[in-house]
Amino acid sequence: MRIAILGGTGDIGEGLALRWGRSTNYELVVGSRERDRAVAAAERYRDRLAARGHDPRISGAANASACEEADVIVLSVPPYAVADLVSSVADAIPSTATLVSPAVGLNHDDAGHHYHRPAAGSVTALVRDAAPETVSVTGAFHSLPAGRLRDLDDPLGLDTVVVGDDPDARAEIIELGDMIEGIRAYDGGPIDNAAELEGLTPLLINLAEYNENLADAGVRFVTHDPHRTH
Amino acid sequence: MRIAILGGTGDIGEGLALRWGRSTNYELVVGSRERDRAVAAAERYRDRLAARGHDPRISGAANASACEEADVIVLSVPPYAVADLVSSVADAIPSTATLVSPAVGLNHDDAGHHYHRPAAGSVTALVRDAAPETVSVTGAFHSLPAGRLRDLDDPLGLDTVVVGDDPDARAEIIELGDMIEGIRAYDGGPIDNAAELEGLTPLLINLAEYNENLADAGVRFVTHDPHRTH
Repeated sequence: MRIAILGGTGDIGEGLALRWGRSTNYELVVGSRERDRAVAAAERYRDRLAARGHDPRISGAANASACEEADVIVLSVPPYAVADLVSSVADAIPSTATLVSPAVGLNHDDAGHHYHRPAAGSVTALVRDAAPETVSVTGAFHSLPAGRLRDLDDPLGLDTVVVGDDPDARAEIIELGDMIEGIRAYDGGPIDNAAELEGLTPLLINLAEYNENLADAGVRFVTHDPHRTH
Repeated sequence: MRIAILGGTGDIGEGLALRWGRSTNYELVVGSRERDRAVAAAERYRDRLAARGHDPRISGAANASACEEADVIVLSVPPYAVADLVSSVADAIPSTATLVSPAVGLNHDDAGHHYHRPAAGSVTALVRDAAPETVSVTGAFHSLPAGRLRDLDDPLGLDTVVVGDDPDARAEIIELGDMIEGIRAYDGGPIDNAAELEGLTPLLINLAEYNENLADAGVRFVTHDPHRTH
């Protein structure tokens, strides 16, 4: 398994690279617009994991090169940049790859943060519209606080939801999410359900703002019988 | 403290009446369009709690009568009925009362359920627009599964979020939420933040549909240090 994390020098990209670098032996490629920055970030992530006794396979490359032979491509860039990013690397995306969009469109007013729904219906839908038709598109990892993901001492204990129109691609990304210790990944259904999922992030930001004890909160879904929640 | 639960013969109304009847000594008035149905429901709730050794103060009344001298009025009716309900009882609402809207507008398609945002911006905003100006309006208890609320053997372990433009009214409803054992209530800020909160319910319904182990799930907000989440 080869995972490319485009925009992988950013917070959420670093968090995912570190977590997968620790808990899998997958080949991770950090992508960036500038190859040198990607290479430097990959070295930093390797060093951080090596200091904890791990020996991860993490390299760096320009975004398009990072896509080559990737099974999974995470688009770890702001929502306004994601369609341009997909277009700019489209020729390099393997037809069998699964794209993962963790971005959320936000705006804010005096009351708080709000979900800024793109005309496409969601950021994930926007990625689907920009991606080559053969490629599977999913949305996942939206509401995971980047700072906590990067802090390898944080036990997380958080849930994430995966949406996508191809059930096999969803299952693949659910498995990747579940491989991160302290994360449980769930199936959110097709991309038409993405807006409700992406809308969770502004709610969490508002909770952090109005409650002293909810900084960097994530969610856990709770059923009656805890033994049923795997 | 006197709490009126209008539409209190329905699922969520029953759940709140039973939970408050068990954990407070507040005066609870179940409201319904038909007085007789309200009185019968109140008797049923009293019997259920009496069978568990509790002696709650629960009575029944027609919706408008139930509002008299109420400190808090819960609008436990479907979203399409809530504005009409508020208009129909407006003259009976004490000017010092706090209204609580737990309703969520939903629609669905082949993919799943979606948040159906009213033109007012949210169901809570719709209630604010319909209510007398002197009355404080809040939204709360949206994502609590009614069946679990009614099942007094369910330990819950769920969080709820309160929105409202008056911080004192929010604090009052947060306190009422916290009084239910197994529930933690948080501050979501002004009503302009209500859409993100109401949108959590369709996400939970979709999760129940696509994951065998997430029937009737609610949410818990999780920070790094569990000791900080009270």
